[in-house]
Amino acid sequence: MEARALKWWGWGWDDRSLPVESRPVLWRYLQERLKVDPTIHRKVVPIGSIRIPPSLLSPAELDELRRTVDEENLSLADPDRILHAAGRGYKDLVRLRDGRIERAPDVVLYPEDDDAVKRILEIATRRRYAVVPFGGGTGVVGGVEPPASEEVAAVLTVDLRRMRKVREVDVESGLASVDAGIRGPVLEEALNAHGLTFGHVPQSWEFSTVGGWIATRSAGGLSNRYGKIEDLVVGVRLVAPNGTLDLRPLPGEAHGPDLKQLVLGSEGILGIITRATIRVHPIPQARTFAARLFRTFADGIAALRAMAVDACLPDMAYLSDEEETRFAAASAGIGPDGSAGGATGLGLKILGGRGYSLGEGSLLLMAFEGSRGRVAHRSERALGLARPAASLGAAPAERWFQERFEMPYLRDSLLDHGILIDTVETAAPWSRLLGVYEAGRKALQDALWATGDAGLILCHISHVYHDGASLYFTFLGRQKAGDEIGQWETIKAAVTRAFVDAGGALSHHHGIGADHAPYLKRVIGEDGLVVLRALKRELDPAGIMNPGKLLA
Amino acid sequence: MEARALKWWGWGWDDRSLPVESRPVLWRYLQERLKVDPTIHRKVVPIGSIRIPPSLLSPAELDELRRTVDEENLSLADPDRILHAAGRGYKDLVRLRDGRIERAPDVVLYPEDDDAVKRILEIATRRRYAVVPFGGGTGVVGGVEPPASEEVAAVLTVDLRRMRKVREVDVESGLASVDAGIRGPVLEEALNAHGLTFGHVPQSWEFSTVGGWIATRSAGGLSNRYGKIEDLVVGVRLVAPNGTLDLRPLPGEAHGPDLKQLVLGSEGILGIITRATIRVHPIPQARTFAARLFRTFADGIAALRAMAVDACLPDMAYLSDEEETRFAAASAGIGPDGSAGGATGLGLKILGGRGYSLGEGSLLLMAFEGSRGRVAHRSERALGLARPAASLGAAPAERWFQERFEMPYLRDSLLDHGILIDTVETAAPWSRLLGVYEAGRKALQDALWATGDAGLILCHISHVYHDGASLYFTFLGRQKAGDEIGQWETIKAAVTRAFVDAGGALSHHHGIGADHAPYLKRVIGEDGLVVLRALKRELDPAGIMNPGKLLA
Repeated sequence: MEARALKWWGWGWDDRSLPVESRPVLWRYLQERLKVDPTIHRKVVPIGSIRIPPSLLSPAELDELRRTVDEENLSLADPDRILHAAGRGYKDLVRLRDGRIERAPDVVLYPEDDDAVKRILEIATRRRYAVVPFGGGTGVVGGVEPPASEEVAAVLTVDLRRMRKVREVDVESGLASVDAGIRGPVLEEALNAHGLTFGHVPQSWEFSTVGGWIATRSAGGLSNRYGKIEDLVVGVRLVAPNGTLDLRPLPGEAHGPDLKQLVLGSEGILGIITRATIRVHPIPQARTFAARLFRTFADGIAALRAMAVDACLPDMAYLSDEEETRFAAASAGIGPDGSAGGATGLGLKILGGRGYSLGEGSLLLMAFEGSRGRVAHRSERALGLARPAASLGAAPAERWFQERFEMPYLRDSLLDHGILIDTVETAAPWSRLLGVYEAGRKALQDALWATGDAGLILCHISHVYHDGASLYFTFLGRQKAGDEIGQWETIKAAVTRAFVDAGGALSHHHGIGADHAPYLKRVIGEDGLVVLRALKRELDPAGIMNPGKLLA
Repeated sequence: MEARALKWWGWGWDDRSLPVESRPVLWRYLQERLKVDPTIHRKVVPIGSIRIPPSLLSPAELDELRRTVDEENLSLADPDRILHAAGRGYKDLVRLRDGRIERAPDVVLYPEDDDAVKRILEIATRRRYAVVPFGGGTGVVGGVEPPASEEVAAVLTVDLRRMRKVREVDVESGLASVDAGIRGPVLEEALNAHGLTFGHVPQSWEFSTVGGWIATRSAGGLSNRYGKIEDLVVGVRLVAPNGTLDLRPLPGEAHGPDLKQLVLGSEGILGIITRATIRVHPIPQARTFAARLFRTFADGIAALRAMAVDACLPDMAYLSDEEETRFAAASAGIGPDGSAGGATGLGLKILGGRGYSLGEGSLLLMAFEGSRGRVAHRSERALGLARPAASLGAAPAERWFQERFEMPYLRDSLLDHGILIDTVETAAPWSRLLGVYEAGRKALQDALWATGDAGLILCHISHVYHDGASLYFTFLGRQKAGDEIGQWETIKAAVTRAFVDAGGALSHHHGIGADHAPYLKRVIGEDGLVVLRALKRELDPAGIMNPGKLLA
């Protein structure tokens, strides 16, 4: 797995891409809507031309670190330091493509066991090195950025990729104990050998790790069935500078406060997650898909709420607002006038005669999985509650499912064309959901206008709960050449404030990192911060763990 | 509600009882199995004859407290101090009935709002009074016992019963914001007016409070559907001596560690829970019942596990082991030989010809509720997986459901007859469930023998999870006259150690309190205790909150 190279400047595998030109209808649509000049082509600087600051570690300090991990588990090489210098948010990619890397880890360590992790933390505490835990590096809120170096002697990035064993599979209990550095596909392959699956499939699944999912409270595409990662993790081990929390899995225990919940979402500020016990499920006997077109986003939301109330949510439910539905149609080769291009993979028909229109409708993609009986029963009840919508068959949902890991590659192609593209997400109770949606749209719209042009704002719901749902926005516009980061910061600040002001979550599954940290007080209160700081003081008295993240 | 008197010496309403003599088959069965002398009758001392220690508070101190709450919200009356001196465990009842109350609160306060709570905590911090939060007082692990007075100047018990408003009902989101002192029936009545129900129905439901449920990680009879209280609480307010945590409800947010989980299970050691936002559900359209008899407890467990794996658990599933099945039959008027007495309410038939026997079988009671579609689908799938069992129709489950709040009253009658009766509970993953069951049974059996006679050990499973289930034991024996508490302590210690040694939970829903506190380190580790202590230091620097509970 490590043999296949990753892009240092963009998403995913180095040998994979998704040029927007390969979807001509979409590309024409974006040119029109964003008024993009198709001749713009922004290059990525060659990695060899990038100058990063030299490592602050002296040879003696490096020797000391070499005694904690084997020689091959320590890297000072520039490509490794660059690959660990940033996450995969818009801001990260803009800087990486330009070779603007102001801060890189002074060394990258790849420990192979808990003892090595403990030794690293012991040295770091003594020498005041900052420690940045690193899973897949796919985060988008600045969670793995090396901190500014004023207060720390150096920055050690600790990459968990070499701690990736499946330790134990308890088939009867549906539990697996695994190392935190294991990535989605490796975990899935090991479980499949036992007839099991994990069911947690975030879009970063190919690259992100169990530890990263836990650290950020990640959500997968099938969260309606399996839950967010906090519902799937039943035991966890956190190696902290001042001790080890080893919380073992017991169903529904009443042992006082659930300390596991302190590790979930801790984003590296308390210690390093090295192991977890997770809930696993039998490989589904059956999986079916369905797609429906509602007249409006609000109609689709009402149907999702009805399904939640009746406890028959689809295991995957992906509801796009009107703008995202138009985008999806264009992406599938169907123009804004309903004319189908070459590839009508979405299988959408013009439903104008029945009052449905691709130009105005709201697309709901669904998947159901499990035993045949469960799939039959659940889909019958859910589809019954989706009855106000027009059926589009199964193909659009099936296609989305097959392509779900592809879309992040499109971002790199749009960046090539000087297009700003980023995503922001929140969640709200049903009674505030449309209010938060409108507030988020308006903030994005105003900020896009203020920094450029109208742009394009897409939104979908992909995680549904008893009491509400997530909202996931994608926004696109023309890059403000020379001030790409300033433009992004203005938009990001506006929409983040809008979410919180309207009573939405600061984040549903991206987490807090560096980017959202200044807002955390708004959602957990000053006394919440005080409690978090007390926890950190206890587990990390020297304050070396991922400084500047979560707690600003 | 407060007008109706509670028993100060036993369970529930003063005017309600369930004499074992009203179930003659059961009474004969117990006399035989426990070798009880039916002429023994142990009296409860008259409350007027009990001498409790005088209040340690001086008139000046009481005046200061009177300025925090109105005169009618402060009580020094002996009956109030006695009612707040103990919970409702076996040990509590034995002592209360004998009038052995070594420690009672020095005053009982009934604050009406958060401000009063804050003022009380401010005075208590300054004067080193211990503060014992009090909900319904139905706990069984010593959670409301006044601490021994060496280190504290006095003990204030803070009873939340006058904070019982429903603040807001968000019907659309299925959320209700309520005061922590509200009891089950009052909450339910308020929700019913909106067409809603809570769905959390522990056996103490008539008397216990939202705050008490949260503080102890309570489980209700329908937890398979609605979850434990930790799944039902989405927002919570904790007023602590050093601050207020006000955690608002947002679906699936990723705001770092979930601080709400620190309040759930905090058992009064961090502060006083004053308000919560809870998930509420539409009143079920339909409810159906079913009962099945498996050949063995192990067969029944296998069926429950299959239902969990296929995500079609009954909303209530109550599986009794062979011994508890015999007890249930006797309780319904069916003798151990299968002969039906006067009231064959259980509707059990002798199924000997088909290989099922009441003497050996394992009874599974089930309930399904929700929309008609959900009930039909779910019961079809669950009953399909229960197919190895013989059907007993719906009546036994329906009767159990109707009588579910009655059985605790039987305990008082058995105590009248000199019978030791208590319950202990644990939980374990499926792969260890039978092992923990056998270990618990053996420990109880050995300890019963060592302190008296064979006794009777019943067990059931009433809360089922993806990865395992709870085990709830009831044990009965002859009281060791003159050493009732010593006898109980021996048995309790033996079975608690056995649970933990076998890899079971220290508690599934009774909590830790004073009784389980010495064992907490075994399940969360020394570093877990260190983290809890750090939290407590932050929120309660003077250490006044419920001393001696949770953290021994």
